[in-house]
Parts: sequence; structure tokens; C-alpha cells
Amino acid sequence: MDFEVVRQAPGSAARAGRLHTSRGEVETPAFMPVGTNATVKALTPDEVAETGAQMILANAFHLYLRPGPEIIARAGGLHAFMGWTGPILTDSGGYQVYSLAKMRIVDDEGVSFRSPIDGSPHRFTPEGVVDIQRQLGSDIVMPLDVCMGYPHGPGEDRAAMEQTLRWAVRSREHHARSGTGVLFGIVQGGFDPALRAEAARRTAALEFQGYALGGFSVGEPREVMMEAIEAAVTELPPARPRYVMGLGDTPNLLEAVARGIDLFDCALPTRVARTGVLLTRSGRINVRNARFRGDLSPPDPDCACRVCARTTRAYLRHLFAADEMLGPRLATYHNLAFMGNLLREARSALREDRYEHWMRGALARYASQW
Amino acid sequence: MDFEVVRQAPGSAARAGRLHTSRGEVETPAFMPVGTNATVKALTPDEVAETGAQMILANAFHLYLRPGPEIIARAGGLHAFMGWTGPILTDSGGYQVYSLAKMRIVDDEGVSFRSPIDGSPHRFTPEGVVDIQRQLGSDIVMPLDVCMGYPHGPGEDRAAMEQTLRWAVRSREHHARSGTGVLFGIVQGGFDPALRAEAARRTAALEFQGYALGGFSVGEPREVMMEAIEAAVTELPPARPRYVMGLGDTPNLLEAVARGIDLFDCALPTRVARTGVLLTRSGRINVRNARFRGDLSPPDPDCACRVCARTTRAYLRHLFAADEMLGPRLATYHNLAFMGNLLREARSALREDRYEHWMRGALARYASQW
Repeated sequence: MDFEVVRQAPGSAARAGRLHTSRGEVETPAFMPVGTNATVKALTPDEVAETGAQMILANAFHLYLRPGPEIIARAGGLHAFMGWTGPILTDSGGYQVYSLAKMRIVDDEGVSFRSPIDGSPHRFTPEGVVDIQRQLGSDIVMPLDVCMGYPHGPGEDRAAMEQTLRWAVRSREHHARSGTGVLFGIVQGGFDPALRAEAARRTAALEFQGYALGGFSVGEPREVMMEAIEAAVTELPPARPRYVMGLGDTPNLLEAVARGIDLFDCALPTRVARTGVLLTRSGRINVRNARFRGDLSPPDPDCACRVCARTTRAYLRHLFAADEMLGPRLATYHNLAFMGNLLREARSALREDRYEHWMRGALARYASQW
Repeated sequence: MDFEVVRQAPGSAARAGRLHTSRGEVETPAFMPVGTNATVKALTPDEVAETGAQMILANAFHLYLRPGPEIIARAGGLHAFMGWTGPILTDSGGYQVYSLAKMRIVDDEGVSFRSPIDGSPHRFTPEGVVDIQRQLGSDIVMPLDVCMGYPHGPGEDRAAMEQTLRWAVRSREHHARSGTGVLFGIVQGGFDPALRAEAARRTAALEFQGYALGGFSVGEPREVMMEAIEAAVTELPPARPRYVMGLGDTPNLLEAVARGIDLFDCALPTRVARTGVLLTRSGRINVRNARFRGDLSPPDPDCACRVCARTTRAYLRHLFAADEMLGPRLATYHNLAFMGNLLREARSALREDRYEHWMRGALARYASQW
């Protein structure tokens, strides 16, 4: 995998780039839809690609538990199993062990936990999760890390960071011996800019092919998030891609692009779609609202996606009111098309040195309806 | 609407036909997928057409209650509202009043009931349901009828038949004055062949553009069903299309085609799909079964549909196990493609005077896996 900075914004860390993978190119900044269980919920791979997605995210934790990596390996890997031909980044499961697993015990060697599905006992080690992702056939592999919630004490952040760094060394060694795809490093370190900077510097010293910033979007205020992102980016090599994990709400994403972030993933656009929430250029609307009952305008009048070209708010509202599966499905498609278009515009603005101006306009408009 | 018998089977009532509607032709025998709530569950109209469906069914009872016929009329009718450009047959709601509504009171003028959604009081009359279907813009309109369960007494059947006939006269008069599309008559009469024959003769005397047989598929044995169908068909004019309402399981459907039925609708193929049941030429399989966990063969090896060409039983099984919406969606698509292919083959066999032989083979094979 090669990463190329196509255009560096003058006077800021923002840039347009291009990631060359063996499964195709990814123009950055890019948003990766979340396909946790080897499916972007409700959509086919063709539809996901149609919305402008170039790379998707899947989850080693979930796929390890169900259907199991052997099944996926026998099917020829995750790409063949689910029918997505573009690149796939897999999360290691560090975050899910922290947020979903029961009876989690972290020790220096790894983490033991019980399955949230059936309570069965399992153990993840840095080496083990590299192996799982090899069985999945991931294009971008994430190492096992230790995640914290917000808020929490500074001592916890340092401990999590140190553990994440020790595991990063082991992951890197194991991946060099037996891994497939490329391995990113994960920068933890909480919200203290100095600690984040230290985590970024020490992770960068291990020379990964790309860098993920973990532990964001856990409830922290925007300024706190941005300050920590800035502190990390300063310490990361400009020639490598930077990825903020789990970030995908419009304002935070655009602000992070301004600070030099290249990759994003987030379940938000697809998750809120299933409750009737549509992302539009003027902010979010909930199409289940009674005021849309007879509204014959498209879901998002500024969107040219297949759903907005063919349906109305009244029809979508009816589908949600009648609890019809087609409602979540069409809303999911639109929200991913919204993200696809947003990032496409962001890339154009970056290539034409007008990102800051474009972003200010997009943010002002997005806030107008909230 | 014109109906043309393209090929009459020698020595049986079976035939291949063609229904000319203002929204396109329907080759018969044809299966109509059920789109009760103005959506064939989980699929887009494009996909429904892709499976081989030429006409769909929607339901006046459900759409009257939600979103309401005014909303649909304002959207330009049901076709525009849901985006289906082919013909639509709407059921009047007689069956739903019988099966779903609460506190149903039938009198000579109509039927009063309470909404199963919110308990609100409503009244259907023969004239009212023609008006609702005009607001929906139905291509084929069904009159209000009185339905019975199985078993029940012969007195009840006669009473329901007489009421249905009285309402048929009123429906016909009202439709002639102010209806759109074409109106079919509904033949009731239960499972006594003599009563069915009488119902068919008296309904035919009213000269409808087509004839539906109601009250089937309510739990009766196959022979009982077939005998009553035969009794009715004998009394119906060969130049008009014949439709058995609610019939769609493979063996019964093929046997009914052999007895001269042209149109079918049934929720079964889409309903069972949502529980993981796939229709195949060798019978039904439930893809949630543990034996499919590592099965990399297509859902139905004899099917060339888009789902069977691209996915495996293992992947479908995983989607159902993980409660992923894509599972019901893909299974629904396959099951409708199965019905589309089955009816396409039936039509070919009829046009080539080999229906009986083809049907015996299909039935033997379908039963092989049960």
C-alpha cells in the first residue's frame, strides 16, 4: 500500500490524498461505511459502492464471534464472503472488548472476556487479533489496543497508552512475520494534548504504514477533541495516512479534515437512518415526523441519489410508520450517499485550495436547521 | 383491459393468456407479489420487476387506514406514491375486515369495524371501497365481499354468498358510474361444489371483466380446494381472466393452473423469506439451519437469480444468525425470483401443450426434499 499526498493545503495540515491498495484506489479524505457483521446494514455491496464508498470497515471482534474466522477463511476471505471487491479495513476489536464484552480482564499479555452473544469465554492477544485479520483477508489491519471512556483520570490514560504501545510492538513483529495487508498503528493517550502528542510520537517511532487515532467520539466536547487531534497530527509523519476511528458526524468530520485527517469511519449515518433520521445539507431531519405526512418533496432536495430522485418524504414517512423494512433501507442508502457526496466535495475543495472557505459554508448551512 | 387466451390446453381448462392493461401486458398464468402497504416488503419496485413480476397486489384496507387514500391520491396515486409503473390489483379489504379488524359488524348496507392500528371506528360499503380504489388509482378493482373461515356451516356460506352477490350488484353499478380501472367479480360459496358453481354462475351473470375466487387457502385440504375451483371454473366465461385470491404455495398453484386459473397472489413467498425459508425446485429449505453454516453453495443451485449468482448459503445463514436486515431482503428477492421462474416455465409448457407433464415433474421434484 502506497499513500500519496495529492494536494497539501497552504497554511494548514489539511490535504487531499490517494491510497493505493491491491484492491483499488481510495481518494482521501474518505468516509468508510461500517459493515460490522460483514454487511453494511440493509444494503448490497453494489449499492454501498454506488453511494460513493471506496473502502468499508468490518469488525474482527464481531466476525470472530460470529460466524467465526474459519468460516470466512474457507469462503475465500471477507471480500468473497460478503461480495465487496474494494478494500476493507478491519478494526481489531479493542474498542468492542471495552464497550460490549462482559467480564473483561486486561493483563499484560492480552485481554480475556466473555462473549456478549452467549457468555462463552475468549481471549484476545496482539498476535491473535493479527491472525484473525489474516484469516479475514483484511487490507488494512488494526492492532489490539486498550480503550478508555470519557471522562476518566490521567493515570488511566497513561496506563492504557503504555499498554497499547507495548502491544503495538508485538503486533508489528507478528504482522511482519505472518500478516497480510498493511498494519496501522493506533494512537491512544486520551484528551491531554501532551499525552496524545507523546503517544503519537512513540507510535510513529514504530514506523507503521498508517496511523489511527483511537478513543475519540466518546462524549467529549468538540474543542477537546480537536485539540487532541491537532496534538497527535503534529507528531505523525505527513507521508502516512491518518485515520480517526469512529468519527462521522458532519461538523466534527469536516473540522478533522481541516486538521489533516484522511480517513473516517462511523456507524452514525447508517444507525440513525434506521430510526428515520436523514442527513441533509441543512442538517438532520426525522422523516417519521407528522409534518412530513403529505410532503411530496424528495427526502433531501439537494441530493441527486437514487432514493432522492425517486421517492418522497411522504412515502418514506409512510414506510417508517408502517414499520416496513424498505424505510430503513432507503434511508441508509441516502445517508451513505450524503456522506459520499460530502467527502467528494471536500476533496474537490482541497484540490482547489479552497477547503476552509467551503467548510465554513457547509457548516453554517448544516447548523441552520438544528 | 382486454384478455386474450393465447393457448388453450387440449382436454383441460388450463390456458396461457395475455392481459392487456393500460400499464402494460401481463402474461398469464401470473403470480402477483403482495405489496400490502404500498411496498413489496424489503424490495424496491425495480427489484420486484427484475424477479419477473408483471403486476403486484396492494391492499385497500391497509392503505385506507395508513397512510390514507387522500395522501396517496395527492401523490398521484399508488403507482406514483410507491414507484411501481406496472399494473396494480387492489384487494377491497373484505378479507382483512374478516381477519384483522376488531368488533366487526356486517349488515346489509356494509360493514362496521374498528381499526387494528388504533381502535378507531370505520365503515366500508360496496360503494366506499370502489371509491377508495379509485383514489388509489388501481388497475384492477375488487368489490367488497364477505369472507368465511374453514370449517363453518353451509348456512353461513350461503348467507355470505348472497351478501357478496348483493354487494357485487351495487359495486358494479357504482364502478360503472364513477370507477377507474376494471372491476372483477368475487365468487364466494365455500367448499360445497354445488354452492360454488351457483355463486360462479350468478356472479358471471353480472358480467364482470374478470373473476376472483375468494375464501380459499384458509386451511382446507387440497382436494377440497381443487374440487371447488373446478366447480367454479366450469361456470365462468372462458374469455375472462380467473384469479384465485391468496393462493401461492407451489403445489396448489400448479394444480390450480391445470384447472384454468390465470392469476394468483400470496404473501407466502415473501413472508416465509423473512424467517429464512427459501423456495427451491427441490422444496423449501430453512437457511438458518446449522447445517448451512459452512455451505458455500448458492441458496438454490437451480436458480440464476442475482442472489443465487452472488451469495452462498453460509453467508445468508450468517445474516439471519446476526439478525441482519440484508438476510430477509436477499431471501425475499430469491423467493420472488423463484415464483417468477416457476410461472415463466409454466407458461412455456402451456404454450407448447406439455403442461400436465411438466407439472408432474415439477411437483415430484418439489416434494422430494420435504
